[in-house]
Amino acid sequence: MIQNLPFRLILASKSPRRKQLLEEAGFEFEIRTQNVKEDFPSEMQASLVPIYLAEKKALGVSILSENELIIASDTIVEAGGEILGKPESPSQAAEMLMKLSGTTHKVITGVCLRSKSFIHSFSEETNVTFKKLSIEEIQYYIINFMPLDKAGAYGIQEWIGLIGVSGIQGCYFNVVGFPVARFYKELNSLIRNL
Amino acid sequence: MIQNLPFRLILASKSPRRKQLLEEAGFEFEIRTQNVKEDFPSEMQASLVPIYLAEKKALGVSILSENELIIASDTIVEAGGEILGKPESPSQAAEMLMKLSGTTHKVITGVCLRSKSFIHSFSEETNVTFKKLSIEEIQYYIINFMPLDKAGAYGIQEWIGLIGVSGIQGCYFNVVGFPVARFYKELNSLIRNL
Repeated sequence: MIQNLPFRLILASKSPRRKQLLEEAGFEFEIRTQNVKEDFPSEMQASLVPIYLAEKKALGVSILSENELIIASDTIVEAGGEILGKPESPSQAAEMLMKLSGTTHKVITGVCLRSKSFIHSFSEETNVTFKKLSIEEIQYYIINFMPLDKAGAYGIQEWIGLIGVSGIQGCYFNVVGFPVARFYKELNSLIRNL
Repeated sequence: MIQNLPFRLILASKSPRRKQLLEEAGFEFEIRTQNVKEDFPSEMQASLVPIYLAEKKALGVSILSENELIIASDTIVEAGGEILGKPESPSQAAEMLMKLSGTTHKVITGVCLRSKSFIHSFSEETNVTFKKLSIEEIQYYIINFMPLDKAGAYGIQEWIGLIGVSGIQGCYFNVVGFPVARFYKELNSLIRNL
């Protein structure tokens, strides 16, 4: 729907959810990724980590021509001042979900748009509230959905999100993995200001 | 995941979105519908209309055995004190979307659970904020998605929701058409209190 887009979009992500969201928002793009170590300075403020990692990912991918725009992003879950990344085991996933149970946490996605001539980054925050989850619900979810590829050990679009998230404040698709409306708005402004 | 459910669930709705949400939440159910006129007293307060219509739908379906639980629901959009139902034409859809553009509106779903021995109803509200939509965006959406089956003329899970909804406050799935987490919670309490 954005007409006469002066860029070829390159998505620097292997996430099937990001790919699907961008497709459903009507964007055409190519996927180009490179493995980047997702570490960050330990003293860094949690809210700055997603932009930092998104920029790192964007800088890890080569730009092959003048009109390419790299899109990179990173999503973290912050609960009680602690960053929850992807769990390394089912038991760590269960620990994370017990931490999220009955409370509100933040999901923060950082997005970096990089061309040959500029880097433009932003981040979007959504608050997510879980009802009190029972041990049985947490075990059922982990066994059936194995959320080891997901920050905070859950997908809001999956069973646990449907039955367990009592409400959110902010952009839903940001929690799924990409703040589509914000990206659309920022891309529109970038084009207008070229 | 709700163990030993003492009911056979009967969904009194033809909506493919409600069916899908309940399936993804792990419920097994049968669909049984009857056409009910979706009118309501004109002086009725907007927030009470969805429960009123959900009860009307639940009462319209026959209960065939003691252990059946009818699930009926109705979703309305309220913007500036006015109820927006399903648009009757593309031009009415465009009018509705122009009304929603750049503002926050309420999506209210009423749910009625009815057995032989009780009726239990509740409603769930979510606030939805649209960015300012351009005429081109509204036209593109209506032509490509024909939202005549949707209250307020939009599906939040469709293109217009992805690019146009800057944020929500409350349950996302309530806006899609059914407040799954609330239903799960209410059903659990009903069972505990039987």
